Amino acid sequence: MLNIAVIGCGRIGRIHAENLATRVPGARLAGVADIAAASAKEVAAQFHVPKATVDYRELLADRAIEAVAICSSTDTHSQIIQEAAAAGKHIFCEKPIDYDLARIHASLSAVKKAGVKFQIGFNRRFDPSFAKVRELVATGAVGEPHIIRITSRDPEPPDLDYIKVSGGIFLDMTIHDFDMVRFLSDSEAEEVYVIGDAKIVPAVRELGYVDTAIVTMRLINGVLATIDNSFKADYGYDQRIEVFGSKGSASAGNRKPDEHLLMDAAGVHEAKPLYFFLERYAEAYVLEMRAFVDAVLKNQTPSVSGNEGLQAVVMGLAATRSLRERRPVKLSEIA
Amino acid sequence: MLNIAVIGCGRIGRIHAENLATRVPGARLAGVADIAAASAKEVAAQFHVPKATVDYRELLADRAIEAVAICSSTDTHSQIIQEAAAAGKHIFCEKPIDYDLARIHASLSAVKKAGVKFQIGFNRRFDPSFAKVRELVATGAVGEPHIIRITSRDPEPPDLDYIKVSGGIFLDMTIHDFDMVRFLSDSEAEEVYVIGDAKIVPAVRELGYVDTAIVTMRLINGVLATIDNSFKADYGYDQRIEVFGSKGSASAGNRKPDEHLLMDAAGVHEAKPLYFFLERYAEAYVLEMRAFVDAVLKNQTPSVSGNEGLQAVVMGLAATRSLRERRPVKLSEIA
Amino acid sequence: MLNIAVIGCGRIGRIHAENLATRVPGARLAGVADIAAASAKEVAAQFHVPKATVDYRELLADRAIEAVAICSSTDTHSQIIQEAAAAGKHIFCEKPIDYDLARIHASLSAVKKAGVKFQIGFNRRFDPSFAKVRELVATGAVGEPHIIRITSRDPEPPDLDYIKVSGGIFLDMTIHDFDMVRFLSDSEAEEVYVIGDAKIVPAVRELGYVDTAIVTMRLINGVLATIDNSFKADYGYDQRIEVFGSKGSASAGNRKPDEHLLMDAAGVHEAKPLYFFLERYAEAYVLEMRAFVDAVLKNQTPSVSGNEGLQAVVMGLAATRSLRERRPVKLSEIA
Amino acid sequence: MLNIAVIGCGRIGRIHAENLATRVPGARLAGVADIAAASAKEVAAQFHVPKATVDYRELLADRAIEAVAICSSTDTHSQIIQEAAAAGKHIFCEKPIDYDLARIHASLSAVKKAGVKFQIGFNRRFDPSFAKVRELVATGAVGEPHIIRITSRDPEPPDLDYIKVSGGIFLDMTIHDFDMVRFLSDSEAEEVYVIGDAKIVPAVRELGYVDTAIVTMRLINGVLATIDNSFKADYGYDQRIEVFGSKGSASAGNRKPDEHLLMDAAGVHEAKPLYFFLERYAEAYVLEMRAFVDAVLKNQTPSVSGNEGLQAVVMGLAATRSLRERRPVKLSEIA
Repeated sequence: MLNIAVIGCGRIGRIHAENLATRVPGARLAGVADIAAASAKEVAAQFHVPKATVDYRELLADRAIEAVAICSSTDTHSQIIQEAAAAGKHIFCEKPIDYDLARIHASLSAVKKAGVKFQIGFNRRFDPSFAKVRELVATGAVGEPHIIRITSRDPEPPDLDYIKVSGGIFLDMTIHDFDMVRFLSDSEAEEVYVIGDAKIVPAVRELGYVDTAIVTMRLINGVLATIDNSFKADYGYDQRIEVFGSKGSASAGNRKPDEHLLMDAAGVHEAKPLYFFLERYAEAYVLEMRAFVDAVLKNQTPSVSGNEGLQAVVMGLAATRSLRERRPVKLSEIA
Repeated sequence: MLNIAVIGCGRIGRIHAENLATRVPGARLAGVADIAAASAKEVAAQFHVPKATVDYRELLADRAIEAVAICSSTDTHSQIIQEAAAAGKHIFCEKPIDYDLARIHASLSAVKKAGVKFQIGFNRRFDPSFAKVRELVATGAVGEPHIIRITSRDPEPPDLDYIKVSGGIFLDMTIHDFDMVRFLSDSEAEEVYVIGDAKIVPAVRELGYVDTAIVTMRLINGVLATIDNSFKADYGYDQRIEVFGSKGSASAGNRKPDEHLLMDAAGVHEAKPLYFFLERYAEAYVLEMRAFVDAVLKNQTPSVSGNEGLQAVVMGLAATRSLRERRPVKLSEIA
Repeated sequence: MLNIAVIGCGRIGRIHAENLATRVPGARLAGVADIAAASAKEVAAQFHVPKATVDYRELLADRAIEAVAICSSTDTHSQIIQEAAAAGKHIFCEKPIDYDLARIHASLSAVKKAGVKFQIGFNRRFDPSFAKVRELVATGAVGEPHIIRITSRDPEPPDLDYIKVSGGIFLDMTIHDFDMVRFLSDSEAEEVYVIGDAKIVPAVRELGYVDTAIVTMRLINGVLATIDNSFKADYGYDQRIEVFGSKGSASAGNRKPDEHLLMDAAGVHEAKPLYFFLERYAEAYVLEMRAFVDAVLKNQTPSVSGNEGLQAVVMGLAATRSLRERRPVKLSEIA
Repeated sequence: MLNIAVIGCGRIGRIHAENLATRVPGARLAGVADIAAASAKEVAAQFHVPKATVDYRELLADRAIEAVAICSSTDTHSQIIQEAAAAGKHIFCEKPIDYDLARIHASLSAVKKAGVKFQIGFNRRFDPSFAKVRELVATGAVGEPHIIRITSRDPEPPDLDYIKVSGGIFLDMTIHDFDMVRFLSDSEAEEVYVIGDAKIVPAVRELGYVDTAIVTMRLINGVLATIDNSFKADYGYDQRIEVFGSKGSASAGNRKPDEHLLMDAAGVHEAKPLYFFLERYAEAYVLEMRAFVDAVLKNQTPSVSGNEGLQAVVMGLAATRSLRERRPVKLSEIA
């Protein structure tokens, strides 16, 4: 059994806490921390957790705790990673590691030096539909990949306050799609070009941001990729991918809450996609945590490592610069 | 919080135990019983259950326990229901109550006399797709229902030993479909006619049973219904329903493990349906138990009552007689 | 080139005339007849047809004409078949041959005696989707067939005047489905049982007819079949089939006018099925006529012979009796 | 009735000839021309055409002929358009008008001066699925359009000889997609950026061409668009579009030859898309010609005018320059 603690009991922290407590064989949720004492206590009570605290350092100091899941706000990730690594804890960290490359490098160095396991929370890699597409690519079902297409649209925009500290759409939202491109292609990007506009939240324009965008990329292995993003799809969370290659196409469509079909005089109707990431990726959250716990218990390198966290941010920074300078930007200009 | 115990820790008992322990707000899994001590202990250990026993009567005697979920073998249901009712426990019971009408009536009388809540485990009513079809019917989306069609095929036959004590396909397998017809139509059946054959497990023929069947029914409210069953669909568990009415058709298709699509030179391919009832109805098992706990806590009558359990058996007996006598059989000949 | 004439220039006659004139290689539309002179002339003018007449006997007397397509009203089929056969013409005849078994037998005897080719217009056998299902069955893709399911619903009821002379739903509408069962199973039926009601056109009840029905059948080769019919599906023409067997299931769904998908706040919507038989089976009408012309030119027996026309009527008569007598009826009681 | 002649009896010319002869009410196919006398004669014989010639000028000199459909090779379009306009003939012309802007302008000037009707053969606008998406956009079903996505992949590459004179993928293949973007958005493009590679036919690289590409565009009305192209999709002709807007998404998927579904132990399988443009756009070819004939007969401006032909070429030239210069190119740099 792996004793693991959750740091940060917000929305995503609670999900990981619940999964660790009830759906991850081999894991024992040994502690929770949140700067709001009430949150930590509530989660602890709900899931039979022996230790709840406002100070994550208390968990890091607990020798019985072998691993931590860092679910606190992004600006604290780098600091906590470095402390946890120094304390010899294995680390699962929500994405992104940080928006700043220097702090990411510092975090990853600390992890490397400590020799602990590290997994970044790119949960979509564990979505059964996306994982199946990746498997089809890996087993050659589509031949040599030529084109990757991703549609990734949220059902509603985040709060403006959140947007202001988010680093912009490419670092906050597209970062998942950048990782998906890497996951599906097994390649780094060479050059990124974006076009975008503020169509949903006009105020993002003054921040130099956009809320609607199309990204195109050349990858080093020759694959061409395109991503389209929007802050708001009126019909719900729209998450689709396709890998097209010399032998065919593997794609994944949206998942619905149910499989009903209504045929009436007005047409043929079915359910909208699952509303948002909590619903759509519920299974992926369980599976990524199982993979992390499994990797630690078996002393294996997690499949989603620190470099994954780094590269997606580099792509996000390249996209951000492409938007500003209205030209294709090479990744070598960033990293 | 409702203190509830699970009696019978086999496959389905474990599912209810896990759900009660981790996914049913308002429930506290307070005890488990199984005639195999190891099974009871294992489940208790896994889900932090304070009491594990080989004797369910110990749970019935525990005044802190307010409700029980009866998941033991069918032949014990009637006895346990009556004892649990006498002990004032609210009762969730796996289907069927019994194959014998007298014992069903005795059970339901005991429940009625004790004034406890009773819910029968017709889990499919809680499947999101089927529930949505029912909702569409109830809200008039298909107008006046005219025809109900159900396809219900297992991915593999049960063991012959199980078949021998199962009462035959109509009491063991079609019973769920009979309940679904009642659920979708809000009506009792008037007359049942079946045709069938032994195509999968030839040995069932000697038992007077079939493993492949088509059932047709006139319902009292005028709806016409047809069900087709098979013990073995090579592509997995096939569970589809349709209600056709004066304004349209509402149907529910199968649910897949993922939403991938592969297009290649050989065709366009997608995933097979979820394999069997544990996968397909995982969500339904959670939702039915939430409904039961909720009904008890709010002092409401559960939506799936004892009469549901009775009527489906009556339909199964009528179908069994129709098979033997090769003629349409009225339900009034049975009950 | 085969010189062929069309007898009867109503709705279906015009379709065959147009197809023969423009879409059937090897055919030359050499004459048309209709009891309404204007209809015959109009069709002749539209498709460059050299001969138009009110008297089909004029066409039969024309030695240059080698084949006829009989598209006149059902009550004239038997007479025209016998005369055409006597005149040595190859015959394509719209379904049904007749409602009367004696007249069918007389027609088929005349055909046999004359040694001319005969094809009955069971166009659905040529529908690309249905033909593909049949091909999958024939090539063993579903293994040994166990269950056949057919849904066949019209978008709107016929006129009451038409219904009165139609012979009832089983001879007029289900007859196509009976033929489809034979086509898909390669077997005759043994016993038929139906339930039905008048839900769309109450006046059919007084005729002893129904407009909504479920048919079940045992076939001689052991396949079990079920058909559901309705005179009125509010969402359009609903034509679906399924063959389920030991290795899988082959089915055919409805065809839509287009492949659009609209996702909005209200749901996900697509087009309704093609409205009625003229739209749905447009391609089938071309293909059946190509098959007929091809069979004549190559001196082969058409794949849809006179016996097809006979057996479907026998099934329809058995169903009609089953409705009246509320019991399963063996085909041997009819033929 | 409109007397119309077809100039050029190659593959596409024959389709238009057949449609004009048999499926376009109001049209009379009055003449055909082809530089190969045999081709012209063959088409004339097949469709009852009174005049067949090797010299299109003979048709232009025929005062009874009111309109021409120009289906000859692209390099002859400009010349024939100008002569036909001078002869007062209404003109349907296959795409593209020309690859040279000066010749396009000369052609359109001649048309304008003569006051004849002119329609360019962007047949996809008449595809029922694409037309439905356009209708949904036009009626506001998706709100304000934000993103357009097009996938357009051929099932097999053209011959290298053809590629050499084709002007490259953007002028030959993507030109249809450029027109679709304009059709769906009702806007001109502002700037185009492309990435591409030679993955299917390596020899195109030496021509400075690509066979796999992703195009992104900003449109003047603010819409963002992306197109992905390939010369070879192993599963057939892949033609999909999507318009995403403030209220939802309207898309069109591929059309299949049939609607069968096979479920077996290996998965769930359906038919591949219709193979290529002749199959996929068969209906569109009929509908575009009906629209042209209708516009002439009603003295209305055809919905697909000369400017459509011009703008798509301008977009193709911008894309070609973007590929060469590896930067976004404004359309104002081209026109």
